[in-house]
Amino acid sequence: MHLPVAADFAAPPGARQRRAWDEADRAARPARLARLRARLSADGIDAYFGLGREEIRYLTGVALGDGEEKVAGHSGRFLVSAEAVVVLADSRYTLQARREAPDSRIEAVTYDLAARWAELCGSIGARRVAVPATEISHALWGELAAAAPRVELVPAGPWVADDRAVKEPAEVERIAAACAVADRALTTLLPEIRPGVTEASLAWRLETLMREGGAEALAFDVAALAGPQAALPHGSPGERRVRTGQVLLFDFGAQVAGYRSDMTRTLFVGEPRPRDLAIHEIVARAQAATIAYLEASLAAGTVPNGRAADAAARDVIAAAGHGQHFGHGTGHGIGLATHEAPSLSRVASEAPLPSPTVFSVEPGVYLDGRTGVRIEDLVHFDVAAGRVDRLTRFPREVLVVG
Amino acid sequence: MHLPVAADFAAPPGARQRRAWDEADRAARPARLARLRARLSADGIDAYFGLGREEIRYLTGVALGDGEEKVAGHSGRFLVSAEAVVVLADSRYTLQARREAPDSRIEAVTYDLAARWAELCGSIGARRVAVPATEISHALWGELAAAAPRVELVPAGPWVADDRAVKEPAEVERIAAACAVADRALTTLLPEIRPGVTEASLAWRLETLMREGGAEALAFDVAALAGPQAALPHGSPGERRVRTGQVLLFDFGAQVAGYRSDMTRTLFVGEPRPRDLAIHEIVARAQAATIAYLEASLAAGTVPNGRAADAAARDVIAAAGHGQHFGHGTGHGIGLATHEAPSLSRVASEAPLPSPTVFSVEPGVYLDGRTGVRIEDLVHFDVAAGRVDRLTRFPREVLVVG
Repeated sequence: MHLPVAADFAAPPGARQRRAWDEADRAARPARLARLRARLSADGIDAYFGLGREEIRYLTGVALGDGEEKVAGHSGRFLVSAEAVVVLADSRYTLQARREAPDSRIEAVTYDLAARWAELCGSIGARRVAVPATEISHALWGELAAAAPRVELVPAGPWVADDRAVKEPAEVERIAAACAVADRALTTLLPEIRPGVTEASLAWRLETLMREGGAEALAFDVAALAGPQAALPHGSPGERRVRTGQVLLFDFGAQVAGYRSDMTRTLFVGEPRPRDLAIHEIVARAQAATIAYLEASLAAGTVPNGRAADAAARDVIAAAGHGQHFGHGTGHGIGLATHEAPSLSRVASEAPLPSPTVFSVEPGVYLDGRTGVRIEDLVHFDVAAGRVDRLTRFPREVLVVG
Repeated sequence: MHLPVAADFAAPPGARQRRAWDEADRAARPARLARLRARLSADGIDAYFGLGREEIRYLTGVALGDGEEKVAGHSGRFLVSAEAVVVLADSRYTLQARREAPDSRIEAVTYDLAARWAELCGSIGARRVAVPATEISHALWGELAAAAPRVELVPAGPWVADDRAVKEPAEVERIAAACAVADRALTTLLPEIRPGVTEASLAWRLETLMREGGAEALAFDVAALAGPQAALPHGSPGERRVRTGQVLLFDFGAQVAGYRSDMTRTLFVGEPRPRDLAIHEIVARAQAATIAYLEASLAAGTVPNGRAADAAARDVIAAAGHGQHFGHGTGHGIGLATHEAPSLSRVASEAPLPSPTVFSVEPGVYLDGRTGVRIEDLVHFDVAAGRVDRLTRFPREVLVVG
């Protein structure tokens, strides 16, 4: 068994690379806005009111931290019309908005969005405004509707989410960079894993390695789950100590220049149990089956869909008798958000997958109270190039630690 | 000037203390539910559909990480009727929900909440269901309303938020413990602050000290802002280097056993500039004025309101000629969320503050492009005890570092 070394993976990006990505975003933003404006125009809509953290960054440049929406009030929310981009900011966010969204008009709005709504819409000549109904609260929708009866609110389609699913080269580069930060962090952690260490200490160490190794934030809280805990697909690491003969599942990701990674590896602490090895083999085969299916589809000149890509992994697990032990979907898109379009699942769209895009492939088998195995890689799926490339480079083979 | 030392502050809680808090929560939950049920009954409502991360933990025990709602689907969302508590969980969350909410019925719900809605409401005999309209998306409200026309949805009042604003002793203990973790972390950082270090490295070091000193998470991303950056009340730390003669503002908080702290200190790197010292003196006086006002009100047998408490600080700053340099509110409640009821601001309620409660007192003065000062403590406000106690114990005096 060949253990990876840090030099196997790309080094973290430097300041010059980060500036280049910032410039790429600013250069790409007019085209992103143009695609949205074309959708608005096609539906006879005058403006779009955006609220989500990811949409804010994608279309305006204003970067909010994860969860910062909850304390930011209306700051960062924006209106896009055919001519203008208007970004709302309260006094705490004015300077940041001016710096990060230099191509937008910044409007000071504190608590009084409803009171300002008619005037703001009037200032951009908007009578029909599309609002993402899955993002706005029922209360705020009602307040805006009541505040300006002459402004019609219509539910927006998933236009920006669909557009974000198609990744620009500089977006893929950042996801790949976030993958490399995570790959390298787990590589560095490997020799430190010993029976007796706690899940929580391993999770914190892995976080530290990412944060000191190029990540400005985590993509999500690190899961480090030993033995029976690995059967919880979303468990939290605790004070449980890792024991010889257990599996040890790490699910984690980094954020680099706004973009995220997500990977899972299930390691073996000491001599693997035959039961766990058998499950690992099934899961690895299931993961390979989805990727092989994607590649075969492209080779045959067809564009696969997320439901069929899910079935490719699920069929392997079901054939091995574990169909009922794989409850979640096979994959999800990733970018500015950890979970975004497209989806690979039993209920996913049967429309062709977007391209180029990035998503996870992460089948798992979970035996309640006993053990669990999941293997997760991000792949870059590119129909025009006819390629399915893994961005996660950490080895997928059986790896014994401790 | 007396520099604080770590021993000035309470040690982080041990496992026994944490178990005691868990037990206190479980013991308190029936009373929390009873208060909600009394509100439902008074309004002729059969059930409450809760969605917020904090409400989920407060009323059911299911603990989601910050931002985990975004990937948890419907997991953790719950229905409370006169008789039952029903917690929704998809396959990833079933085991966690069973363990953390042992007194609730767990219902497997994946994507299909609308399809299950009529049956779920029927199972608890609910025909009128209150839903927090500020939490639920406009789209989900519409889906639920359409899925079960015989179930009436009504906007919920801020019943749970108001109830959460009144803190139980075990809640105040955890906020105080989170304050001590933050106090101790900044104390340890002080001798490490030198001209030339970057804001980002100081922020990461402060985070590390909290996470290794008893915090299971941060309350929010650490702000470490030097010189002119301190004029951004919500700025993000960057690669800027701290220089002699600048102010250095830290705004940060810890999470301990689910409860949060929030504090701000503005330090001086090397010899303070008279301008910065003068502003610091004004802000310190403004902060003391709000606390003195609260104390005087209680001594006079009246319960102050959040608008008047804000004015006490604001008047001091305005009298010093900086009224236009203090744009945000003076304070906010804190607990399971970093920002919650009550509010101390120009638009806050004029109803008496809840009690006992915990909130921040954090006036600031910000000179665009030049400098900024904020001083923030959490206080425990208790009308019955006639007391206003600072939970943040780190000194508030002028502190020179570097």
